[in-house]
Amino acid sequence: MSAAQALPAVLEKIDADLDNSLNRLFELIRIPSISTDSAYKDSCRAAAELVAKDLTSLGFEAAVRPTAGHPVVTAKTNGSAANGGPRVLFYGHYDVQPVDPLDLWKTPPFEPKIESLTGGRKIIHGRGACDDKGQLMTFVEALRAYKAVTGKLPIDVTMMIEGEEECGSKSLFDFVRANANEFKRDLALVCDTGMWDQKTPIVTTSLRGLLYEEVTITCADRDLHSGVFGGGAANPIRILARIVASLHDENGRVMVPGYYEGVPELPADIKAELKGLNLTAEQFLGQVGLKVPAGEKDRMLIEQISTRPTCDVNGIVGGYTGEGAKTVIAAQASAKISFRLVGTQDPEKIRDSFRAFVRKKLPSDAKAEFINHACSPALQVAYENPALAKARAALTEEWGTKAVAVGSGGSIPIVGDFKTVLGMDTLLVGFGLDDDRVHSPNEKYDLTSFHKGTRSWARIIAALAG
Amino acid sequence: MSAAQALPAVLEKIDADLDNSLNRLFELIRIPSISTDSAYKDSCRAAAELVAKDLTSLGFEAAVRPTAGHPVVTAKTNGSAANGGPRVLFYGHYDVQPVDPLDLWKTPPFEPKIESLTGGRKIIHGRGACDDKGQLMTFVEALRAYKAVTGKLPIDVTMMIEGEEECGSKSLFDFVRANANEFKRDLALVCDTGMWDQKTPIVTTSLRGLLYEEVTITCADRDLHSGVFGGGAANPIRILARIVASLHDENGRVMVPGYYEGVPELPADIKAELKGLNLTAEQFLGQVGLKVPAGEKDRMLIEQISTRPTCDVNGIVGGYTGEGAKTVIAAQASAKISFRLVGTQDPEKIRDSFRAFVRKKLPSDAKAEFINHACSPALQVAYENPALAKARAALTEEWGTKAVAVGSGGSIPIVGDFKTVLGMDTLLVGFGLDDDRVHSPNEKYDLTSFHKGTRSWARIIAALAG
Repeated sequence: MSAAQALPAVLEKIDADLDNSLNRLFELIRIPSISTDSAYKDSCRAAAELVAKDLTSLGFEAAVRPTAGHPVVTAKTNGSAANGGPRVLFYGHYDVQPVDPLDLWKTPPFEPKIESLTGGRKIIHGRGACDDKGQLMTFVEALRAYKAVTGKLPIDVTMMIEGEEECGSKSLFDFVRANANEFKRDLALVCDTGMWDQKTPIVTTSLRGLLYEEVTITCADRDLHSGVFGGGAANPIRILARIVASLHDENGRVMVPGYYEGVPELPADIKAELKGLNLTAEQFLGQVGLKVPAGEKDRMLIEQISTRPTCDVNGIVGGYTGEGAKTVIAAQASAKISFRLVGTQDPEKIRDSFRAFVRKKLPSDAKAEFINHACSPALQVAYENPALAKARAALTEEWGTKAVAVGSGGSIPIVGDFKTVLGMDTLLVGFGLDDDRVHSPNEKYDLTSFHKGTRSWARIIAALAG
Repeated sequence: MSAAQALPAVLEKIDADLDNSLNRLFELIRIPSISTDSAYKDSCRAAAELVAKDLTSLGFEAAVRPTAGHPVVTAKTNGSAANGGPRVLFYGHYDVQPVDPLDLWKTPPFEPKIESLTGGRKIIHGRGACDDKGQLMTFVEALRAYKAVTGKLPIDVTMMIEGEEECGSKSLFDFVRANANEFKRDLALVCDTGMWDQKTPIVTTSLRGLLYEEVTITCADRDLHSGVFGGGAANPIRILARIVASLHDENGRVMVPGYYEGVPELPADIKAELKGLNLTAEQFLGQVGLKVPAGEKDRMLIEQISTRPTCDVNGIVGGYTGEGAKTVIAAQASAKISFRLVGTQDPEKIRDSFRAFVRKKLPSDAKAEFINHACSPALQVAYENPALAKARAALTEEWGTKAVAVGSGGSIPIVGDFKTVLGMDTLLVGFGLDDDRVHSPNEKYDLTSFHKGTRSWARIIAALAG
């Protein structure tokens, strides 16, 4: 029985098995696999082991493999799959973002639950419910339904589920290079992107790259009393503020020298298509209490958030930040600064230029130290890959609304290497929504995203296998 | 027996009793009376009660009196003192600064100990060892020696030991106004200032005022994912950095409108005297690893740190500040910003101007909220007060080096009110050193400061009483 022949029974099986699918997802969400904080190292391993165990139960040969950081779960069908269709590499991640500020969560982040919103919408509440545990499990649950209906996995699949996506996939780059033959397949599949809106699916055609730097400015060799040294001693917070303030000009352009090298101008037809989507500030920013697009003044909002490069400060800290007042001049201040890259911007070149830019602004009594947390280029998926059209058709069939092909503002660090190191295109399909609060308190995933997402993968697999 | 007659025996008693004096100081340092953090409320009360008990044992009528914040210890001699000399008000504080970062302390901050440095110098190590528990106790121990030798307190003393100096003395202003008759004496004495160097005592003739503001910038109504919103959403850290960066111009001048109203130009002779002190950057900044004066470029370093007004950022925080990377755009960012004021600068007027300055720089998607932590004017002590000359002579006799009269860069919020509300001058004498690390980890007080400081007060009291 081909995947296409099995599809109706597979979709029925997915519908019937939804509660069990949710229980499996909840078990995974309950593990606080926060990769960026070393206190959660054991939890990351526990999440990896749970995923490996589950894949083994589907007939995969699965393993939890060590890296310099958190382990990677790999799995191969090794003859347990039906013949035909492309050999695919599915990539996802079991790690999640930190949960601070914890007091803003309505229910604990690692105690997943279903909540009903007004209007009948149901959501899965919890850290990782969307990014990426919920999304990852849509694909796994689709495979499970095929296995239940046909006794086999529907296509040749290699799984690569990592544990460091939320902190830059640092170990994965070496891992992929060291095992390139193992992961070089015909097509990569990733479920870590979003929908246009609750009804309209997307095949994502580009991802922004990510350069993420942490800079620490040090002046005196100790914290000083501002009553004694105030006015005379260099203050690293003031110096850092000047650097941060100088990163953009008044029009929102990034001032790091050479930053715009490799940033493509959109072809007129693509730009017209983007304009046609008519994304308003009210619609996009209004949902989070904002009104005015804050990016480059001469660009449409949809360009600012998807096809233009950006620079943002993700964190800053220095001096006394507790309750009340302390008259201190800090010895150090630091900031986490990230750049979303597009086109052929070179992350390493920009990193060097950024560091030189910072150093040039230092007075003689200040020094700067840097830590790199991510350094990956942008990705453009080939429009002509037939998988793209097949996926759009399958998604359109499932959702009853024509699937659109647009670029995403987000970054998935490793996907660039799938192209450059492994030589294959990536099909980026996901079911996140703008109001999912990924990376924020109260992350959620629509129950519909999870359910119809699983059904969507069943359809896409059938289309690819056919 | 007059105080002057008793003095030789009193000085002997101080020498003989040094170990007991230290034990009493250590008992006070052991109480973690951090006033700015409400978690230490009970400790603040415990410190107040210990001080009151000690003063009672000297014959004072002492009380721990409530305020809106931490209590004030008051004490009166009420006939238990010898006749003659001015009636004095002694002011000090039992509260201390926070101890973060705790991991930089070589020994725990609230476990005082004596340490021997190379060259035979001995120091008392602990939070509050200098500021102000050690300094406060020099005066108390001098009184104790008089009491032991003569059976009486040497002059009419009213004590006012507060618990909120390190967070702006907020409750004390109302307390002094409400009880003005009780505290209106002939002269105020304060021991919360420093020496010129290890050998040279100072009578401090001016104090800078302090305006301390906390500003919080809010943009979106939640933390955002920079992959989704980056480039489109306003970032409060960037906005705050621009505000902080705009507080000074390239020459180090503060840009808040009207800031320099009331800042006096020094008379030529005073300026020449300051210049004569020949304070070098190497000498003053070199001790903390710095080289270049960071204040107004057209001013001497000694002016920058004592007679010129300043603006410093004492703390900043926003977004993700934990280990590793998080691609978040924060909803909020905040900074603690303080101004050291001189001459007749009006702290309330400057507070209003600062807030307007900040609001003017906000884009439409940002709002600012403010908390005031301190708002007190500068103080100039009358040069012609005879107590000044008496104190200089007594200090010169004790230290064997001529006592100098200079302005201090620090602030003691309530001292301005001693002049304006209670109509009396303040004699500011203290024994702190530049390397005492007050407000920093590893605060210390030289054993010599404590010992000879106590002897200095005995001499000053004798001079005043005579």
